[in-house]
Amino acid sequence: MPIDKIDILSLIDILGLVAFTISGVFAGMQKKLDFFGIFVIAFVTALGGGTLRDVLIGHLPVGWMRNGDYSIIIFITYVITLLFHKYIKNFTKFLIISDSIGLGFFTLSGIQRGLEYGLDPGFCIALGTMTGCFGGVVRDILLNKIPMVFEKEIYATACIIGGLIYFALIKLNSHSVPADITCILSIFVIRLYAVKKKLSLPNLYKQ
Amino acid sequence: MPIDKIDILSLIDILGLVAFTISGVFAGMQKKLDFFGIFVIAFVTALGGGTLRDVLIGHLPVGWMRNGDYSIIIFITYVITLLFHKYIKNFTKFLIISDSIGLGFFTLSGIQRGLEYGLDPGFCIALGTMTGCFGGVVRDILLNKIPMVFEKEIYATACIIGGLIYFALIKLNSHSVPADITCILSIFVIRLYAVKKKLSLPNLYKQ
Amino acid sequence: MPIDKIDILSLIDILGLVAFTISGVFAGMQKKLDFFGIFVIAFVTALGGGTLRDVLIGHLPVGWMRNGDYSIIIFITYVITLLFHKYIKNFTKFLIISDSIGLGFFTLSGIQRGLEYGLDPGFCIALGTMTGCFGGVVRDILLNKIPMVFEKEIYATACIIGGLIYFALIKLNSHSVPADITCILSIFVIRLYAVKKKLSLPNLYKQ
Repeated sequence: MPIDKIDILSLIDILGLVAFTISGVFAGMQKKLDFFGIFVIAFVTALGGGTLRDVLIGHLPVGWMRNGDYSIIIFITYVITLLFHKYIKNFTKFLIISDSIGLGFFTLSGIQRGLEYGLDPGFCIALGTMTGCFGGVVRDILLNKIPMVFEKEIYATACIIGGLIYFALIKLNSHSVPADITCILSIFVIRLYAVKKKLSLPNLYKQ
Repeated sequence: MPIDKIDILSLIDILGLVAFTISGVFAGMQKKLDFFGIFVIAFVTALGGGTLRDVLIGHLPVGWMRNGDYSIIIFITYVITLLFHKYIKNFTKFLIISDSIGLGFFTLSGIQRGLEYGLDPGFCIALGTMTGCFGGVVRDILLNKIPMVFEKEIYATACIIGGLIYFALIKLNSHSVPADITCILSIFVIRLYAVKKKLSLPNLYKQ
Repeated sequence: MPIDKIDILSLIDILGLVAFTISGVFAGMQKKLDFFGIFVIAFVTALGGGTLRDVLIGHLPVGWMRNGDYSIIIFITYVITLLFHKYIKNFTKFLIISDSIGLGFFTLSGIQRGLEYGLDPGFCIALGTMTGCFGGVVRDILLNKIPMVFEKEIYATACIIGGLIYFALIKLNSHSVPADITCILSIFVIRLYAVKKKLSLPNLYKQ
């Protein structure tokens, strides 16, 4: 049973992979892992979301097994990030920025895979949110941290809002590319704004 | 590749979804999560078992992506549970009861999906047990609690006994509906009885 | 939708199942679980890697649901291990040895499944490594231990080296059986040597 079709990586996939690989490398270095450990964390962070997306939708074998470019991009990004990490002082800041960029690209990539499979917009957004969030969740679980997504911050919420904006623009007869860009940018901006302002969702138990 | 067939939700699925959503909401409120956090926990508790079932058996895209009714039922149950939670004093009791009800319904739903795919009774029971238990396991892991299923209590055991009763009744030429009801009721009763009497399995290490 | 083909268990699968079941039983007994808990741990340890392998590649329903022999082998091994555990003094040693044997067999089994699906060697090795490591990762997570694979030791690295050796031998026109045996043995030896010498990968942060 050979593979029938090679997945072609879009620019969106590539940029998401790069961003999440960088975030994985910084997260691994924060925890002082060895070379191999950092690579595993980077690999899992970059591919976790897309793997969940492909498994849930039945796009099997999963994307990164159909096309070596995924792994090559991760490996090159990993090497470059390690080489240049000495010039970077603030790991946490870089981790949050690259994580937010990856979040935007991967959410859109999940939405697009959902559309390809004929899912309704609501499920596309759910799939996009899971694609965006899952790599980071696995990264944080492996590093024994509380997953960012559960820290009462705007994280998955940013993906959902970005997805709603995407479908609103499509409905208004926007062309695909401006809708794509707006979706990614809005997720990135909402997420960073929430981190900066320490925004969180309203709570049931406040006094 | 659009979806070829819409999954039709049976009464069994609906009641299982409602019970597990309620258990997820109470578990989330116990841990004082925000609105979104509670919804995520409820969603994952309600859909975790069925998602694992569909992934293992290759029924992809997974059920809840084929049919919006799953999500609608969860959302409505979530809102109603939040609205009426003030009238409920003992969260833990409600959590255990709704969890036990969901356990019964979802175990049966896993058994039935297994039969549909031509699995042998033993695998149907294994699939049913995983369908029943997995949502609660993910709920407890996300909430950083020890999963109920591993607490040396009768939990998965209740599912297995319920499954054995189901196939015994089918073998005795029972009609499907009485076997269904007996299976669900026996799981519910065994589980609650075990909690009440603090029953657990025999231990290798007792003195 | 009945199952079209029964998976035939190879000798490699059988020996891997036996080794990982033994490692699961010892790990469960170390944590003083009850009979059922030990069985669950043994089952998950033995089937976790193969389940991940089959899900990622889309070989669904997963192998152990197509063929009852998997479960029978696990059950018999479980019973025999429990019966004879009294004659064994050092659980930890037995756990590490059986884990290393399972690692070798399951890595090869993942490589072979990858070849069957026409994957490139690099992905076969990645699939083999995940097949080998995942059962032990789930076992350790369920038992609330830090997964062996992340303990800065040579673990996944052993699988990768074994995989590289396998494809080097195949490339040199080796017959399949000698390549199989060399792959398994090299993983087993590297892993045990690393444990004994407390080898770990070079670290970025040493002074």
